Amino acid sequence: MPDQPTLEVCLSPALLPIFDTRDKIVVIIDIFRATSTISAALDNGAAAVIPVATVEECLEVHAQNPALVTAGERDGQVIPGLQYGNSPLDYQADFIAGKTLALTTTNGTRLLHMVQGADTIITGSFLNLSAVCAYLLGAGKNVLLACAAWKDRVNMEDTLFAGAVVARLQSRFELACDSSRIALALYDAASEAPSLLAFMENSSHYKRLAGFGLIGDMEYCMTLDKHPVVPEYTGEALVPAKALNVA
Amino acid sequence: MPDQPTLEVCLSPALLPIFDTRDKIVVIIDIFRATSTISAALDNGAAAVIPVATVEECLEVHAQNPALVTAGERDGQVIPGLQYGNSPLDYQADFIAGKTLALTTTNGTRLLHMVQGADTIITGSFLNLSAVCAYLLGAGKNVLLACAAWKDRVNMEDTLFAGAVVARLQSRFELACDSSRIALALYDAASEAPSLLAFMENSSHYKRLAGFGLIGDMEYCMTLDKHPVVPEYTGEALVPAKALNVA
Repeated sequence: MPDQPTLEVCLSPALLPIFDTRDKIVVIIDIFRATSTISAALDNGAAAVIPVATVEECLEVHAQNPALVTAGERDGQVIPGLQYGNSPLDYQADFIAGKTLALTTTNGTRLLHMVQGADTIITGSFLNLSAVCAYLLGAGKNVLLACAAWKDRVNMEDTLFAGAVVARLQSRFELACDSSRIALALYDAASEAPSLLAFMENSSHYKRLAGFGLIGDMEYCMTLDKHPVVPEYTGEALVPAKALNVA
Repeated sequence: MPDQPTLEVCLSPALLPIFDTRDKIVVIIDIFRATSTISAALDNGAAAVIPVATVEECLEVHAQNPALVTAGERDGQVIPGLQYGNSPLDYQADFIAGKTLALTTTNGTRLLHMVQGADTIITGSFLNLSAVCAYLLGAGKNVLLACAAWKDRVNMEDTLFAGAVVARLQSRFELACDSSRIALALYDAASEAPSLLAFMENSSHYKRLAGFGLIGDMEYCMTLDKHPVVPEYTGEALVPAKALNVA
């Protein structure tokens, strides 16, 4: 049997320096809500999503290209100067199709920019779980699942998604770190709960977003396979990946 | 109801800067094998265990005090120049009682020295699980469970022990981070395995130590409550903590 490709999980950007990302497919995970919103926008026909780390950067790319839609939230409210929020529900097809979105997302963008030398960077969410897994199975390369976390703090939702990917890929990949097994145990535990969202109810981010009235957003973000797209990073923007020949 | 003290889990020394350790009880966890060996040595009557990070430091403290027993391993073998290994089985009462051990332990000692401003630093292992939990319940202070990990990589055995503590304390503490819930899910998953050791068989450290013929050591390290002692750090050495009045 030929060696299987490796599958690793990085639970926080603070742990990224431990991993060698060269020549790997790196999957950026920021479930609440950046990578969920990216899935929704691209599947609903957005031309591209430009991830930016700060409001200033968002305003800057907008000044260069006024046709861009700008988005960013702070504490659940649209940031003054930007146009829309970070909710995946904001980006329905009748609004976003054909447009390019400049999305302010602190944790996810910071992580994206930290990754060095990867073969490919894509983004993952429950909304595109099966599409991401099919892509990774088809590519057959070494994979790092990289959780954006929250200000470097390991969080439930990103770890849970990593576990969902591990559960689907484990027979075809070598689990090359204990974090992948820990994420899998978390996902197995969640599978016994009434729903993924119910399992999340004690998590720190759930409580924070629920405080902003965003339970509907979280429910949407925990929905499986509603947006079967694989967002791929071009070095500048996320665009739908070209289809692979899946083995 | 008065506020409960908080309980947090730090999965890797690389994540320690995120946590405020001031005025907390910090529990250092290095299951394979430093904190297991510390439990065994102190419960078997060692006067103290001096944790050192390097062979050079070990030889230095030995030069200052030739009565010290020196210990350290590399790749499963006693390091040349030192006297004994890192196995908890090396420190039976008839040998270690009354002596002071200088123990070379890279990951655990580094973490110990990183902790700033803690109320108290103690060490935890499955061998003293109940003693540690009784101590934490009795103290009623905020707690950080700090995993030594392996060269900053999150590992199964330290996370599993953190989960075991969370399982026993969760009704009396506020779980203040998602890592505590993730560790608990891992421990719950392990509770369904034939044994804690069986659950560990796919872990990276199990494979590494098994390759050195150390399965017996790991079996010992996964034994519950064989050494009911609470090692407390004085700033220089670990000694048995004085008994608390448990509430």
